[in-house]
Amino acid sequence: MKKTPFLTKDKAEEITAKYPTPFHIYDEKGIRENAKSVIEAFSWNKGFKEYFAVKATPNPFILKLLKEYGCGCDCSSMAELRLAHECGFKDDEIMFSSNDTPAEEFQYARKINGIINFDDITLIDYYEKEVGDFPETMCCRYNPGGYYTIANQIMDNPNDAKYGMTREQILEAFKKLKAHGVKHFGIHAFLASNTVTNDYYPELAGQLFELAKELKDEAGVHIAFVNLSGGVGVNYQPEGEGNDIYAIGEGVRKKFEEILVPAGMDDVAIYTEMGRFMLAPYGGLVTRAIHEKHIYKEYIGVDACAADLMRPAMYGAYHHITVLGKENAPETETYDVTGSLCENNDKFAVDRKLPKIDMGDILFIHDTGAHGHAMGYNYNGRLRSAEIMLKEDGSYKLIRRAETLADYFATLDCFDELKGLFN
Amino acid sequence: MKKTPFLTKDKAEEITAKYPTPFHIYDEKGIRENAKSVIEAFSWNKGFKEYFAVKATPNPFILKLLKEYGCGCDCSSMAELRLAHECGFKDDEIMFSSNDTPAEEFQYARKINGIINFDDITLIDYYEKEVGDFPETMCCRYNPGGYYTIANQIMDNPNDAKYGMTREQILEAFKKLKAHGVKHFGIHAFLASNTVTNDYYPELAGQLFELAKELKDEAGVHIAFVNLSGGVGVNYQPEGEGNDIYAIGEGVRKKFEEILVPAGMDDVAIYTEMGRFMLAPYGGLVTRAIHEKHIYKEYIGVDACAADLMRPAMYGAYHHITVLGKENAPETETYDVTGSLCENNDKFAVDRKLPKIDMGDILFIHDTGAHGHAMGYNYNGRLRSAEIMLKEDGSYKLIRRAETLADYFATLDCFDELKGLFN
Repeated sequence: MKKTPFLTKDKAEEITAKYPTPFHIYDEKGIRENAKSVIEAFSWNKGFKEYFAVKATPNPFILKLLKEYGCGCDCSSMAELRLAHECGFKDDEIMFSSNDTPAEEFQYARKINGIINFDDITLIDYYEKEVGDFPETMCCRYNPGGYYTIANQIMDNPNDAKYGMTREQILEAFKKLKAHGVKHFGIHAFLASNTVTNDYYPELAGQLFELAKELKDEAGVHIAFVNLSGGVGVNYQPEGEGNDIYAIGEGVRKKFEEILVPAGMDDVAIYTEMGRFMLAPYGGLVTRAIHEKHIYKEYIGVDACAADLMRPAMYGAYHHITVLGKENAPETETYDVTGSLCENNDKFAVDRKLPKIDMGDILFIHDTGAHGHAMGYNYNGRLRSAEIMLKEDGSYKLIRRAETLADYFATLDCFDELKGLFN
Repeated sequence: MKKTPFLTKDKAEEITAKYPTPFHIYDEKGIRENAKSVIEAFSWNKGFKEYFAVKATPNPFILKLLKEYGCGCDCSSMAELRLAHECGFKDDEIMFSSNDTPAEEFQYARKINGIINFDDITLIDYYEKEVGDFPETMCCRYNPGGYYTIANQIMDNPNDAKYGMTREQILEAFKKLKAHGVKHFGIHAFLASNTVTNDYYPELAGQLFELAKELKDEAGVHIAFVNLSGGVGVNYQPEGEGNDIYAIGEGVRKKFEEILVPAGMDDVAIYTEMGRFMLAPYGGLVTRAIHEKHIYKEYIGVDACAADLMRPAMYGAYHHITVLGKENAPETETYDVTGSLCENNDKFAVDRKLPKIDMGDILFIHDTGAHGHAMGYNYNGRLRSAEIMLKEDGSYKLIRRAETLADYFATLDCFDELKGLFN
């Protein structure tokens, strides 16, 4: 499928007149339609809930938008718990799926009555010591070990992943929690990241449903939900297909009817914790070409850098680029598109076929709606960009301001000898 | 050489009573002694100046400390220029070595009278248009292309690097700048990163000295300095040797006497822009073991994460770890040492032989003095840590406070609908 930006050149020029590049822009219409599809695809399951992975795009305006569709929040830290709480998410609308968790985060998660997902069996004693009070509903994270395969293709290596408990441990954990008075149990597992196959969730669901049946019997507990976590990806490439959420929902339903219904467990709720699938395609990084360079390769320098989008630098990730206003121009050039960091990995694209770019052209870097702004850093003294929502009616709204030098220097504000500097 | 932390367990416990882990700590004594050595190693060159690469450790207390030894600042952005300026660096104590440079940064660099290093020939016209006023001393960055080899070993691939100008371009650039009234010229090149060989600077110097001779004749200009940039690394491993700065200084001197002195160019100043070599070994990340986990591997969870030190996650970089108080204990265990991010690359060490770690033990992660705190991010809502200076007299001083939730939420401070939240 061809990648078409949700932003036109005219609209981009209108916005940049008020908010200079670079910035991330989000497509309200796309976010809403996709959220609706996700809910619909799993509507066969009474208790279904998507807990949006806050780490993907920790912006309150986006969380509130997803809340309209009944989404909850998957939080991994104090900041994310706090963000969810302040955005009005309550009780079981908050899932606390963390690992290597500090005591104060367990305490706060309990205080706001979120659902706590234990990553490890040792955390139960730790929780008892640091929090003490066990709620009626809790969750444990499972790691089957080995290699995770779908149709003989290795998807990931859970053996080497720091997450979750072994089969023996999760059984012991359920028994322990039951002894602490916990009544309703959840099972959670994250086995592969950014899969682009409609089979991942169904296969995982099948595995977890079997486990749920066994744990119900062996531990004698009520399984309230199975949390499929994240891992449903998007297609960053311009070729090939993405995931079909309806096929995924249907695949999970089949496993549910095959395994859980006959076991008398048709009250089990399905939870998901998608970040990328909920947001990635509905964000773009908008940046302007400010330099061209002709040495051993052809370079286009833009006013964004890895501080705004780290995925290409960290993972060598592909992000498609459209030159706004040149959507249909022939791709006659081969460019490296670079940011300004003193890091040679600060390149948004390497050897990329693109139309001839003129200085001042606006580039739309696709699929930055998840793990884009959120992974920004301040290396080389670079400031993180603004976030803007393109609304359904075509108007736009700032939803996070750009950083300033004052933000950059903020953690130097407590020194008498620096008073008056850096302001 | 065995890696010995500059921090004892007792001192660490004393500090953590006031400033909780995690934090980066710097060794004032080590920084001073090393800076002295660098100056001494190049003292044969009248104009020698080390421009500390601010990006490595952009902390004003560290910049001021290095200033005592006559160091200048190598800046790559507005924030870094501002930082150097506010720390009292003036005029030719500031080198502005950037790439893909925005207009306002050229303007500010000119305003504070720093030395501007042009990364590309197209930037000269850009500078003329955006700034206009050419100072007497300017610099250009050279990229020879090809593969950079020392003794037939490929060090790096300048062909693929976004930096610098070709041979033809730098000649043309010098002529252009001369026509703009520039009188004194510098040549700069960065060809390899984190080299651990005493031959890198001498080989590079030889190449740049030859170029300087040629450009002097061909462009008819005065070559005021040769800037060897960075690239002198440190040995992160516990085995093997590091660089010997005296051998490096001596190697550069030989090339200087071989090439420049006979050409009547003995007034050429040598500049360096070291970051890693100046600071990396004199910083450590101090973090506490808070969890242990026994699944398919043995894990130790600490209270720091990739938000405090990204090099292992981004580059797979090795950082040595010492368990304080167990410096001489046998390394009987094999651990993955992990942070709390929902990223499986958030591991400070993989399959690392270490002594048995007990909960509460303090781990010292070595060589984080450069590109450590500076590369921190806020992914997963994690907050960046404090920085502390361990002073020569054994006392300690906070030199940057830890981030708070208020810092994390700062860029949401301009929205009426969020008033009162996130504070």
